[in-house]
Amino acid sequence: MRIEIITTGDELMSGLTQDSNFSWAGDALTSLGFATEFHTTVGDERDNISTALATASQRADAVIVSGGLGPTPDDLTSEVAAAFFGAALELDGEALRSMEERLSQRGRTLTEMNRKQAYLPRGSSVLINHWGTAPGFSIEKGGVVFYFLPGVPKEFRAMMGEYVLPELEQRDTGRKKVRSMLVKTFGLPESEVAVRLEGLEREGIRLGYRAHFPEVHLRVTAYGDTGEEAGKLIEGFSSDVRSRLGGYVFSTGGETMEEVAGILLRRHGMTLATAESCTGGLIAHRITNVPGSSDYFLEGVVSYSNESKEKILGVPKDILIEHGAVSAPVVKAMASGVRRLSGADIGVAVSGIAGPGGGTPEKPVGTVFIGMDSDKGGVRSEKFLFHGTREEIKLVTSSRALGFIMQIFLNNV
Amino acid sequence: MRIEIITTGDELMSGLTQDSNFSWAGDALTSLGFATEFHTTVGDERDNISTALATASQRADAVIVSGGLGPTPDDLTSEVAAAFFGAALELDGEALRSMEERLSQRGRTLTEMNRKQAYLPRGSSVLINHWGTAPGFSIEKGGVVFYFLPGVPKEFRAMMGEYVLPELEQRDTGRKKVRSMLVKTFGLPESEVAVRLEGLEREGIRLGYRAHFPEVHLRVTAYGDTGEEAGKLIEGFSSDVRSRLGGYVFSTGGETMEEVAGILLRRHGMTLATAESCTGGLIAHRITNVPGSSDYFLEGVVSYSNESKEKILGVPKDILIEHGAVSAPVVKAMASGVRRLSGADIGVAVSGIAGPGGGTPEKPVGTVFIGMDSDKGGVRSEKFLFHGTREEIKLVTSSRALGFIMQIFLNNV
Repeated sequence: MRIEIITTGDELMSGLTQDSNFSWAGDALTSLGFATEFHTTVGDERDNISTALATASQRADAVIVSGGLGPTPDDLTSEVAAAFFGAALELDGEALRSMEERLSQRGRTLTEMNRKQAYLPRGSSVLINHWGTAPGFSIEKGGVVFYFLPGVPKEFRAMMGEYVLPELEQRDTGRKKVRSMLVKTFGLPESEVAVRLEGLEREGIRLGYRAHFPEVHLRVTAYGDTGEEAGKLIEGFSSDVRSRLGGYVFSTGGETMEEVAGILLRRHGMTLATAESCTGGLIAHRITNVPGSSDYFLEGVVSYSNESKEKILGVPKDILIEHGAVSAPVVKAMASGVRRLSGADIGVAVSGIAGPGGGTPEKPVGTVFIGMDSDKGGVRSEKFLFHGTREEIKLVTSSRALGFIMQIFLNNV
Repeated sequence: MRIEIITTGDELMSGLTQDSNFSWAGDALTSLGFATEFHTTVGDERDNISTALATASQRADAVIVSGGLGPTPDDLTSEVAAAFFGAALELDGEALRSMEERLSQRGRTLTEMNRKQAYLPRGSSVLINHWGTAPGFSIEKGGVVFYFLPGVPKEFRAMMGEYVLPELEQRDTGRKKVRSMLVKTFGLPESEVAVRLEGLEREGIRLGYRAHFPEVHLRVTAYGDTGEEAGKLIEGFSSDVRSRLGGYVFSTGGETMEEVAGILLRRHGMTLATAESCTGGLIAHRITNVPGSSDYFLEGVVSYSNESKEKILGVPKDILIEHGAVSAPVVKAMASGVRRLSGADIGVAVSGIAGPGGGTPEKPVGTVFIGMDSDKGGVRSEKFLFHGTREEIKLVTSSRALGFIMQIFLNNV
């Protein structure tokens, strides 16, 4: 089945908005074993929308159109579709009722502008929108099925899941069965991941890379005649991937690094505190993005000045003077200090030069020390030299610190 | 001039990678007064790339193609282009020399795989790539000019700026002159911004919205016969926008909220410290994203537990017991506590329920108190009720806190 996605909107053409509906749909379709052949984007312009529909009808079996179903004058899709299909716009009673219901639940009434949205091309089937106001619709012409969905990402995704994906699966029964998995790695550049996986290619497996700085994600898709066959394929392949990449793999179930660290802390009943200099609070921010993190995260200190390293964390002044704030003895003292202060089982600390200023020949921008204090691992530190912008250095440092925490429990990197 | 952008790559079609080249190019073209009429995306497949070129040649005057110029077997663009233009692939001496030079600077030599990249369709002009290995090229056919550029975003952008945009400007001399401006607002929902700007539309001005949670950005583009005329138009319009939106506008020069807060702190020679509960370090993280922030940001405390609020920040136990951690008296005590601890001129504190758990009927998820202690404003606090996911509530809270800091200096919200 040849699928085309058409996304519409001036905000897409002028680069103001990323086309997240297209990438979301591409991902959802790929995961189900469909391939999207073409994708077209046009602005809110009658002729161009019409041209896009005509072109797609020549080269696709199913066309998914996003956007232009709203109440404002630049929402033209239904009107253009009606003209393209040679069908008059007619008031759809079901669409109207669903809109009235939804609005009345919110204490609002239907305006004339909203009413326009309930007019659909004759011969189309309404797709009720339970997640917003604009109804969608589907219509077939010359053996090609068209789905028209609202452009609001939340509504687009919900209606893809509710209507479009199940119907495409029904229509394309000859399709291979698919299993897919997202393997997340941290600590190796993409090129090194690729080298380590060389020779693993096999029939029925498709491997896609996604750089997600500072992580590298692999999407593995397995195709089989039965779900069982696809499942066996992916199991075998992912076990080979794991043995090649070892501890660089931190998740195969979609979890973030902070979620994995949280799961491990919770499982071992241990608590954490952080002392950050160059990351400026990012480690604590990531850890506390996880719901329920207050169970294991006690406190964080962002000690940007030497005074606060001394005063709050109790880093001895002579160490600061002798070694400088960016040094192994200082991050060790910071880790022990925040552990003592909070009573946590694990204290983790970072100090470094995020740049762009502040570098020296001995300690260039990107020099980072990470320290840790725990019963199991004792007090230790490691030195790194990272490259990138200020925000990239902060981010990769925070990921390394999360990796340090995970290592306490895993010991397999 | 009708412009079409074609982006190629399996990673785009399968949703693994966002199509940043398209949105970057759309933005760059719009800012120069061009309009992109069509955008097509195809995977690394011969027939589909060829179809995309043929379709574009029918409806555009200039076509910009990104991707598929690399050394690997799935890089097919040059080959498909040669077949489409009916021109043989020929070794381009200039392309080869530039690749050899670039590689030798890095201590590498040209491989057979790289050599393939120096073969360009006969009749095309090489576009030397000073930012990477893959050369680009341009070629004209039937009055349509095609530009082929590498897909690596850094290289695509540099070569657009070096070659494509200047040449398009030369080719389209009848074009209107353009001035554009990005107006960033915080504190009003997009619909309310739209209501406030109603009736401001005028000839020669185009207004685009970009929701950039929790901010709303407006891109204003002015078109005139001369640069001066466009400049006057945009000046008048943006002054009207400012008078309608008042202090909700925090930047017209591209600055982030944390940059504006930093500029104000620096200008007034004042220092800052933060005490965060529900934001978990995000405020400190944002403030320290700004280079040089160590000049005015002294320290931050992430006091996730009541113990740390008491022990580090000196929040009296009886206040915590009587009012609970999420309360006006507690954030005030936190703000004063961190100010005292750090010696900063301004202490800002937040406490709230980011969810998804932890809400009560009296204090539902999204309840947030922000407190501040400064000489100018004294000790004060404000209560909010935010909606959204945990990460959204953290983000909007951090923006409100930055807004609090800015208000000390501006007093115009």
